[in-house]
Amino acid sequence: MKLTDPTQTLAALIRCPSVTPQDGGALSTLGSMLSELGFSNERVIFSDTGTPDVDNLYSRLGSGGPHLMFAGHTDVVPVGDSGAWSHGPFDAQVVDGEIYGRGAVDMKGGIACFVSALARLIERKGVPEGSVSLLITGDEEGPSINGTEKLVAHAAARGERWDAAIVGEPTNPDQMGDMIKIGRRGSLSGTLTAEGVQGHVAYPHLADNPLRGMLTLVDGLMHPPIDAGNDRFPPTNLEVTSIDTGNPATNVIPARATARFNVRFNDIWTAESLTDELRGRLEQAAKKTRLRPGRDPVRYTIEFDERTSPSFLTRDEALIETLSAAIAEATGRTPALSTTGGTSDARFIKNYCPVVEFGLVGKTMHMVDERVALSDLESLTGIYELFLERWFASAGER
Amino acid sequence: MKLTDPTQTLAALIRCPSVTPQDGGALSTLGSMLSELGFSNERVIFSDTGTPDVDNLYSRLGSGGPHLMFAGHTDVVPVGDSGAWSHGPFDAQVVDGEIYGRGAVDMKGGIACFVSALARLIERKGVPEGSVSLLITGDEEGPSINGTEKLVAHAAARGERWDAAIVGEPTNPDQMGDMIKIGRRGSLSGTLTAEGVQGHVAYPHLADNPLRGMLTLVDGLMHPPIDAGNDRFPPTNLEVTSIDTGNPATNVIPARATARFNVRFNDIWTAESLTDELRGRLEQAAKKTRLRPGRDPVRYTIEFDERTSPSFLTRDEALIETLSAAIAEATGRTPALSTTGGTSDARFIKNYCPVVEFGLVGKTMHMVDERVALSDLESLTGIYELFLERWFASAGER
Repeated sequence: MKLTDPTQTLAALIRCPSVTPQDGGALSTLGSMLSELGFSNERVIFSDTGTPDVDNLYSRLGSGGPHLMFAGHTDVVPVGDSGAWSHGPFDAQVVDGEIYGRGAVDMKGGIACFVSALARLIERKGVPEGSVSLLITGDEEGPSINGTEKLVAHAAARGERWDAAIVGEPTNPDQMGDMIKIGRRGSLSGTLTAEGVQGHVAYPHLADNPLRGMLTLVDGLMHPPIDAGNDRFPPTNLEVTSIDTGNPATNVIPARATARFNVRFNDIWTAESLTDELRGRLEQAAKKTRLRPGRDPVRYTIEFDERTSPSFLTRDEALIETLSAAIAEATGRTPALSTTGGTSDARFIKNYCPVVEFGLVGKTMHMVDERVALSDLESLTGIYELFLERWFASAGER
Repeated sequence: MKLTDPTQTLAALIRCPSVTPQDGGALSTLGSMLSELGFSNERVIFSDTGTPDVDNLYSRLGSGGPHLMFAGHTDVVPVGDSGAWSHGPFDAQVVDGEIYGRGAVDMKGGIACFVSALARLIERKGVPEGSVSLLITGDEEGPSINGTEKLVAHAAARGERWDAAIVGEPTNPDQMGDMIKIGRRGSLSGTLTAEGVQGHVAYPHLADNPLRGMLTLVDGLMHPPIDAGNDRFPPTNLEVTSIDTGNPATNVIPARATARFNVRFNDIWTAESLTDELRGRLEQAAKKTRLRPGRDPVRYTIEFDERTSPSFLTRDEALIETLSAAIAEATGRTPALSTTGGTSDARFIKNYCPVVEFGLVGKTMHMVDERVALSDLESLTGIYELFLERWFASAGER
């Protein structure tokens, strides 16, 4: 295998059927490539109650600073209807200038380009002065419990320190050079339960329908808008994702109704200040419950999920500038510096070092016929190579 | 058995374990009593797709007019936790002046009192001039498909005509003499479905949450109040009995949400005018949907259940007055003329003749330890006897 050719490195990774939480040989395949470039590999399996064991790889080249981390995952989402694929999802077939396969863009492609970029840089200029590490998990598409979060903590605990990190997730909506992610909104989920009094619909005065109160509570959560966003972040957005009662009898007023919601919040809020805000909104809304005469305001409980992702914004201008400039030079386009979209494993890295995200075009991710143009692989490899060369040059100076 | 003793006639009926749709010998037991009084019995079994076959009894004494119908049911609701009963639910034990058993008040008690009232009247004054019929089903507590509705149509089809009917359901909230039902609200159920566009919560602009529209639609159904009621009926009331989404993923905006509702409506409305009103409310509410820029109003569908009960009000003043006077004489109380509560089998009779409802005290119906005071049985038997005597006297005059 020619490590400098991203189509070859990607094909090798696609051929490992690493549907989460299976590894399918992906980490060993990657580890072999990295060994060939001089890296030292460490494999760690993490376990937790109620989740599958997951295999992880931490691989480092060099021992001094500056130290750059590349983070990502080799696990992929299920193939869906495999019969609907034009070319086998683990066959890595190249057709009309595109390579097909599950994970082609999300994100074996990003890893393959980074490996090839390193191979080219080493071939052209030798091993960079400093260290490069790859922090790769098999648990990004799964529960994300036994992956990046534990791996970065594990490495840090035995002394690893990083100056910057790049996550190779697909960040470009339409074409290469569209967008760098320089932060992410946080995510907070919760369950709201409204309590009433069960009864017969013909005797509503003896019952108390919790759905009346639920409507007011949910309206209070959603309105007015939580904020208007700021120059780096879109507005915080709350979506009620489910309201459920489960009452099959139309002649019975139910005793209880439940709503689930999720908030994607910007850096105006911490998880704590946001839960305070939502509790306050519910308190106000409960008072507005349209009461039957003599009734108390709706009784409710609110529970926030334990796993909350904070929002974050990376402020390392040198890191962002170096990457932007490499992208502009390779593509002729100035990437948007964005904080939109879902959460990513960058949230687990941001407390250890500044982190940005840049990878392929996301259009076909998670879809049947996931695929990437060979020209995009070439473009990303060039960008990573340029970025590596310049980041080490400038970080060495600082 | 002394048919003039309602405790004995009731005990015989309670001992038949006629948990709907089982007959448990109840109709034969009743038929034997009625034969002894000179009635001719007809048993009819009705069947329908998806429902159990149900046994019914139509029993008539006399052949001329005036013709009074007594309607009711021998089937009972399940006993629930039989271990929780102080006395066996089918044992008819008399303890401290009360007789225990499932159906004691709902409504074997009403039937037993009517049989004993007839026995007393016949013993005292002979067979009344005219006809008395009992129309008794075993399908009131079940689907109500193979019972009163079909039995009254069956009897009418072969020439039976009635001048008035009394349904012996428990109508008194607290004590004997509280309340006659002279009509019932109608019942209309429906299903409202709001359609959206599924998507990831992190990209709400690509999705369209149907729960936003659902809140506005449901609010539009409930507010403002549908009417204020009138001198004979309480206000029409709509209860949303279930809102369901069934979306387990808090990171997914759902595609669809469903609400079920039931309206108990007074005689201001027909089922048709009410469905028109609700459709109009939804149309108006949909326009008020809080839109995201560029979005259409919420898409929804509304389906009304096929089985709708109309509201009705009995306007036969002579019938109501005769019954009220008998109650006042026996109890010293003037009964309220009410249209509250749920639907009853009277809705199937009201198109054939004027119908009123009067029976025992409903407090323990459907509960563990359902029971009735022997003094209440005596009171109701006296009321029915007085009513029978006077109704035949005055109906004969008209």
